Amino acid sequence: MIVTIIGLGLIGGSIAVDLRKTGFATELIGVDNSEKHCEKALQLGLVDQIKPLQQAVKGVDIVLVAVPVDKIAVVLPEVLDLIDPSTSVTDVGSTKHVICQGVDNHPRRGNYVPAHPMSGTENSGPEAAMEGLFKEKICIICDQEQAKPQHLALIEKMYHTIGLDLAYMTSDEQDHSTAHVSHLPHATSFALANAVLDVNDRHIIFDLASGGFQSTVRLAKSSPEMWGPIFMQNKNYVVESLELYIKHLEDFKHSLESDDDEKLMELMRNANRIREVLDGESQELVRLQSTTTKLYRK
Amino acid sequence: MIVTIIGLGLIGGSIAVDLRKTGFATELIGVDNSEKHCEKALQLGLVDQIKPLQQAVKGVDIVLVAVPVDKIAVVLPEVLDLIDPSTSVTDVGSTKHVICQGVDNHPRRGNYVPAHPMSGTENSGPEAAMEGLFKEKICIICDQEQAKPQHLALIEKMYHTIGLDLAYMTSDEQDHSTAHVSHLPHATSFALANAVLDVNDRHIIFDLASGGFQSTVRLAKSSPEMWGPIFMQNKNYVVESLELYIKHLEDFKHSLESDDDEKLMELMRNANRIREVLDGESQELVRLQSTTTKLYRK
Repeated sequence: MIVTIIGLGLIGGSIAVDLRKTGFATELIGVDNSEKHCEKALQLGLVDQIKPLQQAVKGVDIVLVAVPVDKIAVVLPEVLDLIDPSTSVTDVGSTKHVICQGVDNHPRRGNYVPAHPMSGTENSGPEAAMEGLFKEKICIICDQEQAKPQHLALIEKMYHTIGLDLAYMTSDEQDHSTAHVSHLPHATSFALANAVLDVNDRHIIFDLASGGFQSTVRLAKSSPEMWGPIFMQNKNYVVESLELYIKHLEDFKHSLESDDDEKLMELMRNANRIREVLDGESQELVRLQSTTTKLYRK
Repeated sequence: MIVTIIGLGLIGGSIAVDLRKTGFATELIGVDNSEKHCEKALQLGLVDQIKPLQQAVKGVDIVLVAVPVDKIAVVLPEVLDLIDPSTSVTDVGSTKHVICQGVDNHPRRGNYVPAHPMSGTENSGPEAAMEGLFKEKICIICDQEQAKPQHLALIEKMYHTIGLDLAYMTSDEQDHSTAHVSHLPHATSFALANAVLDVNDRHIIFDLASGGFQSTVRLAKSSPEMWGPIFMQNKNYVVESLELYIKHLEDFKHSLESDDDEKLMELMRNANRIREVLDGESQELVRLQSTTTKLYRK
């Protein structure tokens, strides 16, 4: 099977590695605006050849769009304009509503399966590509009824092959939930880094490798070029989640200012429940709570 | 050398493991209010015997206090009342100012070396004890001029033996810096967990294992019994750091609400600088910026 990957960064590159490793793709074609990325991707063997967009999407089985979400909104309609009638198209953007809206009335809308494989690292570029990045992670498939069954089936099979579990929801639901579980933690990490970098009192020691700081701030290393458009496209839900979060921070601060030990303990005990959700079986339950969400289990 | 450890949890237990492994301690005596902890600590071989406080601190070389910081403030003066004149005493509390103040005029103040080995996990209890927890982490030694040189030297040697680098500052400086690099990330994690647990809209999917949520919220699993007293003892600096952090979150939110792409990118690019601080050589530079901070290098 021939797969074309547009955008040879962390996500596109890692998918390429797994598609080759699993034998799902027999040929991989790469497209990227950056010549440096193209060279590196060839050198690392992520793809077999580099082509310009117009040629790269012709006569292939799958086109996967893995560029920042503002670029997806531009490239996706072009791809749908260019492809053969039999080609399946998917994207991996962290937001879905704006992207889906942009091709809502496209004659080839049925060829397109909007997806969000939820995995990543704070690194970017083809060098950051790694094997097994998606193992046992979730891939959200959106508005599946708008894709033709054959295209849906092939794209499901592709994501499934590289280790992802599949969940189904509307693009609006995906943007809402992703705002809370992914975009908010990224926003809080960026703000935490800025706050600590702001303390330029030279009489304090920053042992940033200790004390819990490092894991909390890891996401602040993430690429602004990738995350800026995500935050902007999902602005409403991200602002909503930030407001909720700031309210909880204010509660925490208030319990300290008012010496309210009991309230403070209650806040921390409540937060501790996240352990059950993260470690325990309830994670599965939470996943399945949604009436519109179905989980495809391997 | 005989070492008594008061408090057989994550930190006390992990120090015990390393003190035995390195041969620094030939005998380890444990003290803990919890019978379950005592049994478990004996069973795991963390200590050789359990004794009541009064007996445990007699005729030993070092007493190490590793209970929550509110308990340290109570136990430490008792320990100083009870010890032989030659015994060295230290504690591992994450706050130092209140604890040091409490023994400021104690006749045995010179036997006491206030310390904060900056390492930990989100787990607690003797079962959480692990080898090598302190390797290449920082131990802050406070107000070192108030300890007698022999006691300072022995306690330095002990922390050094288990892999810690030593840094020196006043107890007030330590509380200020620790507020930002440790207490703030814990507070933000607790608040993040509460915010996300608050979204009980059943139409959203929580795939909490993906999307960067897990690392950011890890610290929210931490023990309220340990952290409540830390936050309360360091209330002023923690509130200060929370206010700075909330200001940065508001900036972030405002850049979204006002569609200010440029501002948003600037905020993220600034946050990216944390990568250099965490990964690069500048960490060392930052550490050494303080005029009152000296770093003891192995």
